[in-house]
Amino acid sequence: MTDAPRSLGQRKADTLARLVSPVLDAWVSTDGPNLVPLTLAWFQDRLVAATDRTTPTAKSLITTGRARVGLGPTRDVVMIDAVLDRWLPVTEAPEIGDAYVAQNDWDPRTAGPSYIFLLLHPTRIQAWREANEIPGRTLMRTGTWLT
Amino acid sequence: MTDAPRSLGQRKADTLARLVSPVLDAWVSTDGPNLVPLTLAWFQDRLVAATDRTTPTAKSLITTGRARVGLGPTRDVVMIDAVLDRWLPVTEAPEIGDAYVAQNDWDPRTAGPSYIFLLLHPTRIQAWREANEIPGRTLMRTGTWLT
Repeated sequence: MTDAPRSLGQRKADTLARLVSPVLDAWVSTDGPNLVPLTLAWFQDRLVAATDRTTPTAKSLITTGRARVGLGPTRDVVMIDAVLDRWLPVTEAPEIGDAYVAQNDWDPRTAGPSYIFLLLHPTRIQAWREANEIPGRTLMRTGTWLT
Repeated sequence: MTDAPRSLGQRKADTLARLVSPVLDAWVSTDGPNLVPLTLAWFQDRLVAATDRTTPTAKSLITTGRARVGLGPTRDVVMIDAVLDRWLPVTEAPEIGDAYVAQNDWDPRTAGPSYIFLLLHPTRIQAWREANEIPGRTLMRTGTWLT
């Protein structure tokens, strides 16, 4: 049994609620193919990832500037295309670090000097549950909310 | 509170149990970056995806031959690097179709003539839950189980 499709406004509300919810676990893919599970934060309309500067994910993001992010479960999907806004060492970002810790369950600033924050700017956001929500799944296009 | 890390053998058993479990939802990334949620099947040591021949995922897989597959949730991860073994129209694969339907909750053979099965050959499999399982997370390397 499948629920009726949600309105665009409801999907936006559900998506924003999820983006600010505690422990924002996500799948992040960059070129490669590369795919890793990361815990993100939502800070000033940016997705914040924290990882070691030497990981394939950090290197690919800094080189290509692009990522695609999925929030699960796979039958309640939020899919985000994003571009890299900027990155900086965790030790030089007290405000971002505080926001990250407030939302999540660990502090990347304790992970060592090679850890960085990567701020991703969403350009497209889609949200759907089952096949009946595939039409109208786009909530944001070229950085602008459609609702 | 975190459980003790599982042995390599236990991780293999858990992973194989998950691969044959009903409704194998997964995140699949190919070059692009491209990332989509797909329902897979496990058939003769291959991951079986079903999608339209015209999707970016099918095109990228057929062009590059490579994918990275994540089974969630993100704190009980199975990560699979795979290469494309072969692909064929769903209408020409009765045995694969039967296996797909037996494991999942829909039949791609009803989706139209442009749907195809893509058979992915795992080359590396890793499994971990929390940080304490990151050491020893590799279960398969160059197509061979390590346990």
